[in-house]
Amino acid sequence: MREIKIGLLGLGVVGSGVYRLLSENGDFMAQKTGSRLTIKKILVRDLGKPRPVSVPDGTLTTRAEEILEDPEIEIVCELMGGIEPAKSYILSALSAGKHVVTANKAVLAEFGPEVFQAAEAADRGLFFEAAVGGGVPIIKTLRESLSANRIQTITAIVNGTCNYILTRMQESGLSFKEALVEAQKLGFAEADPTLDISGMDSAHKLALLATLSYGSFVPAEKVYVEGIEGLEPLDLAFAKEFGFLTKLLAIAREKEGEVEVRVHPTLVPEGHMLSSVRLAYNAFLLKGDFVGEIMLYGLGAGAEPTASAVVADLLDAARLIISGAKPTSILYRETPLDIKPMPRIVSRYFFRFSAVDRPGVLSKISGILGKHGISIASVIQKGRQIGGSVPIVMLTHEAEESAVRKALSEIDKLDVVTAPTKLLRILED
Amino acid sequence: MREIKIGLLGLGVVGSGVYRLLSENGDFMAQKTGSRLTIKKILVRDLGKPRPVSVPDGTLTTRAEEILEDPEIEIVCELMGGIEPAKSYILSALSAGKHVVTANKAVLAEFGPEVFQAAEAADRGLFFEAAVGGGVPIIKTLRESLSANRIQTITAIVNGTCNYILTRMQESGLSFKEALVEAQKLGFAEADPTLDISGMDSAHKLALLATLSYGSFVPAEKVYVEGIEGLEPLDLAFAKEFGFLTKLLAIAREKEGEVEVRVHPTLVPEGHMLSSVRLAYNAFLLKGDFVGEIMLYGLGAGAEPTASAVVADLLDAARLIISGAKPTSILYRETPLDIKPMPRIVSRYFFRFSAVDRPGVLSKISGILGKHGISIASVIQKGRQIGGSVPIVMLTHEAEESAVRKALSEIDKLDVVTAPTKLLRILED
Ligand SMILES: NC(=O)c1ccc[n+]([C@@H]2O[C@H](COP(=O)([O-])OP(=O)(O)OC[C@H]3O[C@@H](n4cnc5c(N)ncnc54)[C@H](OP(=O)(O)O)[C@@H]3O)[C@@H](O)[C@H]2O)c1
Ligand SMILES: NC(=O)c1ccc[n+]([C@@H]2O[C@H](COP(=O)([O-])OP(=O)(O)OC[C@H]3O[C@@H](n4cnc5c(N)ncnc54)[C@H](OP(=O)(O)O)[C@@H]3O)[C@@H](O)[C@H]2O)c1
Repeated sequence: MREIKIGLLGLGVVGSGVYRLLSENGDFMAQKTGSRLTIKKILVRDLGKPRPVSVPDGTLTTRAEEILEDPEIEIVCELMGGIEPAKSYILSALSAGKHVVTANKAVLAEFGPEVFQAAEAADRGLFFEAAVGGGVPIIKTLRESLSANRIQTITAIVNGTCNYILTRMQESGLSFKEALVEAQKLGFAEADPTLDISGMDSAHKLALLATLSYGSFVPAEKVYVEGIEGLEPLDLAFAKEFGFLTKLLAIAREKEGEVEVRVHPTLVPEGHMLSSVRLAYNAFLLKGDFVGEIMLYGLGAGAEPTASAVVADLLDAARLIISGAKPTSILYRETPLDIKPMPRIVSRYFFRFSAVDRPGVLSKISGILGKHGISIASVIQKGRQIGGSVPIVMLTHEAEESAVRKALSEIDKLDVVTAPTKLLRILED
Repeated sequence: MREIKIGLLGLGVVGSGVYRLLSENGDFMAQKTGSRLTIKKILVRDLGKPRPVSVPDGTLTTRAEEILEDPEIEIVCELMGGIEPAKSYILSALSAGKHVVTANKAVLAEFGPEVFQAAEAADRGLFFEAAVGGGVPIIKTLRESLSANRIQTITAIVNGTCNYILTRMQESGLSFKEALVEAQKLGFAEADPTLDISGMDSAHKLALLATLSYGSFVPAEKVYVEGIEGLEPLDLAFAKEFGFLTKLLAIAREKEGEVEVRVHPTLVPEGHMLSSVRLAYNAFLLKGDFVGEIMLYGLGAGAEPTASAVVADLLDAARLIISGAKPTSILYRETPLDIKPMPRIVSRYFFRFSAVDRPGVLSKISGILGKHGISIASVIQKGRQIGGSVPIVMLTHEAEESAVRKALSEIDKLDVVTAPTKLLRILED
């Protein structure tokens, strides 16, 4: 039985889950794989803090060197979060010849090239299944199972907090605020939920998935991002009348050598696989040139699902250690990757206009749309007054974002229009 | 650039897909992985047959030895189908020190121990992603991504033909016959569809998934099997009235040291992830002790998705060759696995009784159910006559299969009952 010693950086939500998994299923895993994973040292900030797992005396430390400089430790597992010191520790571990497992999407999405190149230079494995999708094996699927495919599109629900909030708004008519407070109470949203609801967390994850799919670093700041803060139950209700559910989607598409990467609330037709993804679940719909459409679905966060992914990575790292194999490269693309600017994307749109209830308004609005080459697919005009104005809701056929932007800015200047138009995009088929 | 030579056994639907994939995406894969997969020889029955791919002169052969005895060939890829000679060729390839990739679920589900042990003895990799779920990476997910988990349940739609037929019966009210003929016309069902519609193909696949999940060979003949031939649109319509869709499910569950393995038509609540799986798609819902529920979804057959899985296996085999790593064992369990006999399973049930339209019938039926400890959850009794009798449809609470069998055999002997009772099982939560 080969024993492989691990140093953990962090014993919080995920770290404790990993510790517990290795305690409970370690024997079973050793029987299966012929090697035993042992946690030798764990870095924390506060030695005295009560922990949900009981750890042998002397295992906890506040000195990172005790892990990073210990030659017996072959794998460093970074579960601290944040950029620094996590990033420096990952780099030191690699340059000390250790393999690294991390759940840190922020470090990878912001400093990918530095970290990926350090792993390549050290000829060590860098595993990050837990960084996206919690227990869902999306990273391995992209890196290994689909590696014979050209990835055409990724369409994903990658943030459980947002999906929870939208599900509750949709199904129970809660306002955004009410749904957020409920999510916080139940532990599905953090006290400061900004990173999630702004769409930034989704952008980090999409950047990583696009990087893996195209073999070239896609920085998170290249991702177009809209969050869910501005959504009103009214919009979700209108979308529903047209047969759509509203989801925060992370979308990457390659077309004619250009890649779109964007995160925004999106209308998904009822009956579509992604429309069944409720509450805190994540889902990844991938389209490859040979595999066609496949979808992976599961819990994207939480101590136990995330621990499942971290330990799968530890087992992969152990296999690499035992075989002495060369890890696969992440950044393999030779030609630069072109990111398509948002104004040039093409989509179908949902508009909600707020207008005074007067004859001729609809014809003014549709006149401007027509002038910009945007054609209308269907309209709902409700008699009901909301704050002195009536909503006019419209779905369009395919149009270019730049034309839409121009048309809406003209429309919003009309004196019959009482508030800025709401725009949502519709999922392309 | 390391070149790895492959011998293909078979150039039919899947073989041609693999050939085409390697031709179209070979350069891209080589750039990514640093190794190039080259097909050196291909075994076929008929050299003169027209092929959808054009292959260089001298590549095709009808002599298996030209592949099995060629020391340059490091991977044998078996895509012939059937038991013999496929099985003998797989065994010869392994004992000649070659790695094997196969899509042949029949050989693995019937002769698993022989083949798995041969791979173990030869210290060679045996890969079979394409044997279950076509392009869906279910095998790798069980073997690698979830290997830290104890698998509690697998609930899967593994046969696209049956799912296609049931979707059409459900959504358009076609009879089983009509839906089957349509599926045959569209290429979703074979001319002889017995293996699919009888549930045997699903049983083969379930046996393989259970073998991987529990580390002990589960022979296909231990799987309880009911097919879809006996389903009537009427039953699907009643199930729908109760809020269920009818799917052919393959179910494995471990509970208190025993494993259930069964394939039968099952009522799935509307809104459940598996209820959205339409037409020829497959889906695998897995529950592990840490990961919770995850689902994988995609096309379970067809040249291109299956080729995607075969080539992913070829890349894994190539990695194994380059690293000289030891392949992981499949049969690792040390204690024997107990298969729970069908009479002892517990489920909720759907019954459709055919009875004469006379007062007191319902009370007779429910009396017998009560006597056997089966309690009724809801009843629909329709006035409409069907062949001189009325259908009484009932859902039960949880009951043991043996009690249900006894009760139904008593009920079916009642003189007011005009035809054998239809029984369907309801998916456990
Ligand atoms: N939570 C999830 O569901 C989830 C899911 C997927 C990915 N992730 C990722 O997993 C990582 C960890 O998340 P988490 O939720 O487990 O975080 P957490 O509960 O806040 O735990 C962080 C741990 O790291 C330690 N730590 C933080 N900064 C440190 C420093 N400077 N020096 C020493 N120790 C330090 C903390 O020590 P003390 O305990 O002493 O404070 C704590 O044990 C993050 O990258 C996160 O994005 C989390
Ligand atoms: N089709 C799918 O969508 C699918 C999906 C998943 C898994 N699979 C599995 O993949 C395997 C192949 O299926 P397929 O649909 O590609 O079958 P197929 O179209 O019938 O092709 C079989 C190929 O094997 C050759 N062959 C058969 N017996 C042979 C023999 N005794 N000697 C030499 N060559 C022989 C045939 O040669 P000729 O061409 O000269 O006749 C043909 O090229 C099966 O195990 C199947 O279960 C298929």
